[in-house]
Amino acid sequence: MKVKVTRKEHFNAAHRLFNPMWTDEKNTEVFGKCSNPHYHGHNYEMEVSLIGEPDPETGYLFDLKILSDLIREHILNAFDHKNLNLDTVYFKNLNPTAENIVVVIWQILRQHIDNKYELKIKLYETERNIVEYPAH
Amino acid sequence: MKVKVTRKEHFNAAHRLFNPMWTDEKNTEVFGKCSNPHYHGHNYEMEVSLIGEPDPETGYLFDLKILSDLIREHILNAFDHKNLNLDTVYFKNLNPTAENIVVVIWQILRQHIDNKYELKIKLYETERNIVEYPAH
Amino acid sequence: MKVKVTRKEHFNAAHRLFNPMWTDEKNTEVFGKCSNPHYHGHNYEMEVSLIGEPDPETGYLFDLKILSDLIREHILNAFDHKNLNLDTVYFKNLNPTAENIVVVIWQILRQHIDNKYELKIKLYETERNIVEYPAH
Amino acid sequence: MKVKVTRKEHFNAAHRLFNPMWTDEKNTEVFGKCSNPHYHGHNYEMEVSLIGEPDPETGYLFDLKILSDLIREHILNAFDHKNLNLDTVYFKNLNPTAENIVVVIWQILRQHIDNKYELKIKLYETERNIVEYPAH
Amino acid sequence: MKVKVTRKEHFNAAHRLFNPMWTDEKNTEVFGKCSNPHYHGHNYEMEVSLIGEPDPETGYLFDLKILSDLIREHILNAFDHKNLNLDTVYFKNLNPTAENIVVVIWQILRQHIDNKYELKIKLYETERNIVEYPAH
Amino acid sequence: MKVKVTRKEHFNAAHRLFNPMWTDEKNTEVFGKCSNPHYHGHNYEMEVSLIGEPDPETGYLFDLKILSDLIREHILNAFDHKNLNLDTVYFKNLNPTAENIVVVIWQILRQHIDNKYELKIKLYETERNIVEYPAH
Repeated sequence: MKVKVTRKEHFNAAHRLFNPMWTDEKNTEVFGKCSNPHYHGHNYEMEVSLIGEPDPETGYLFDLKILSDLIREHILNAFDHKNLNLDTVYFKNLNPTAENIVVVIWQILRQHIDNKYELKIKLYETERNIVEYPAH
Repeated sequence: MKVKVTRKEHFNAAHRLFNPMWTDEKNTEVFGKCSNPHYHGHNYEMEVSLIGEPDPETGYLFDLKILSDLIREHILNAFDHKNLNLDTVYFKNLNPTAENIVVVIWQILRQHIDNKYELKIKLYETERNIVEYPAH
Repeated sequence: MKVKVTRKEHFNAAHRLFNPMWTDEKNTEVFGKCSNPHYHGHNYEMEVSLIGEPDPETGYLFDLKILSDLIREHILNAFDHKNLNLDTVYFKNLNPTAENIVVVIWQILRQHIDNKYELKIKLYETERNIVEYPAH
Repeated sequence: MKVKVTRKEHFNAAHRLFNPMWTDEKNTEVFGKCSNPHYHGHNYEMEVSLIGEPDPETGYLFDLKILSDLIREHILNAFDHKNLNLDTVYFKNLNPTAENIVVVIWQILRQHIDNKYELKIKLYETERNIVEYPAH
Repeated sequence: MKVKVTRKEHFNAAHRLFNPMWTDEKNTEVFGKCSNPHYHGHNYEMEVSLIGEPDPETGYLFDLKILSDLIREHILNAFDHKNLNLDTVYFKNLNPTAENIVVVIWQILRQHIDNKYELKIKLYETERNIVEYPAH
Repeated sequence: MKVKVTRKEHFNAAHRLFNPMWTDEKNTEVFGKCSNPHYHGHNYEMEVSLIGEPDPETGYLFDLKILSDLIREHILNAFDHKNLNLDTVYFKNLNPTAENIVVVIWQILRQHIDNKYELKIKLYETERNIVEYPAH
């Protein structure tokens, strides 16, 4: 009787898509206006989902207030109102595409959530561009 | 060639999170303001999904008007504009957490939908707190 | 050069529509299922708008963080996860229709916001039922 | 380390549900007002998802600008501001139910997307009626 | 102490933009793909607003259930799942642009709502194209 | 018989709130994390509204495709995927608060839209922070 619970949070950040091994021309060719050297930004919406068996005493799978606090402490404090390329350790050597951001968020939260829960992340870079990890 | 169809409906209800085996102090400690003895409430949004093979004659998996009528008869009539703890048989002895509500909705509808269709429920307690059953 | 700024917040509450001068029959006739004696509830979404001249030094009309704090202190603390009829002083003798709630919110916030700003409130009881005060 | 990326697009179209093997009475009985001979219409919202391994050089699973262009060329050009029954080859002999439309979209796009990517389509006929293919 | 109340409803319809005094070339030049002779369609979302003084006995400006019934009887019955050009009397000789539709809806409902209430209509043809009447 | 028509568009940009006449301490005190020297960003949603009399020949107040092209040419080309502080002429000496951005957008578009139309702009910096100009 496994249930999935999801908490939605958001952060606002600047970023730039860029591969330092490439010339500026190649970066512009591949990433277009997303490679603007002065950065652009997004309101990122994030859904953090846990899968497991609810506790019969509480009727909760996981207290969503505690999940919200974990997201605030480990993700929002690091990413909200930040420049992802310059202000975080995660994207010093990793291109902050939505695909890479969603995997990084999963890797960070995985350390703080008991392995009896399956963990999934969905990230909206815009209303029309969305990534999920893991895929299934 | 399996397709999934989903119908979205909503109901407005009051509830209170509460474990009768616990002291008031323990209830407040675990459930916080959600345990207010005078109740609070939500606009619950509910997605009911069926999975199966569409009928080649109609091109329908399941007539969504009929699905909407089933949801109205078996869920909305029981839950809409009700106090989940006091006005329903389902939560007399079961804490009306979103996790428990989503399982109850699944159990009720499962009796009225042919077993050739897989059934899944997604329930939004708020825009930011969401549960699904079954999880996969 | 007047600008309007809006901050959106929400609270979850139980309520019951009821006129104590009327018989139960008349209450049911007029308010239908909204008069359920055991209450029902909503996720109320609220937009608080201020109109005035931005400060040329800051470029702000009003710091929306401060507005958000004012709403939390004076509205959310009183209404969120509460029973509007039983847990608030405002609806002891006033029917908590959306029309009356939006006027009460305006009256409370008006005392905490300088009169140089025009104040307007928009309240979503559901996605499909909305009230605004003042009307123009 | 598989990631899912999704691009959301929309088209506006007219359609009529209708089985030419049936009498008009049977069509009205089964499809109701959706069988209006003069057609009705929808703003269709469509989510196209790809699953696979991101490219370590770009950090992209698939460039969403290219995916958007593919959708425009192969789906929007054929369906947007069209009568699905009369103006497309796909529904000359196939009833344009949401279930059939979502399978047709999948079949068209499958030809233009490398088989190393799993492909999934979600189609909103209205905010409350949704179909997905494949179902899992 | 005037309050504004709003009820949101929707209908799905087909239409075609077309001026019968013009050549086909001119119609295509001005209306583009919106002039497709076989029609296209939309999910129209409609907000009906009334402004006035709430009744002190009920706390209602206007019972939104009654407003919803009026909209169903006079607008949805005429427009929902219809071809606006062919199936309604209103657009036999009037181009069904969003501007003309919103004025027609206002004219129909104005006859059924007491003049002590100011009446305003907002119509979403798509999420991104919106009209309102009257403008102020 | 004045009608209001609205076109919704969006752009993604980086910005930083900052008054160059102030010390860094004062900037941090007033603007908090919005003053991060490395910038942050938003998905800005923008509603551009025109008010006037529809043309009886077309039934249009203003062709929304032309309005969309004007917004693209004069606003999106300047702001989308840009750093508002560094990449635009408008915010070299003007703090890019939402209030200032909405006034700048109005001033730019006002030059390209006939004065017979009243012009209004609504800007969503996030789903919960919104500005409008002019205010009435």
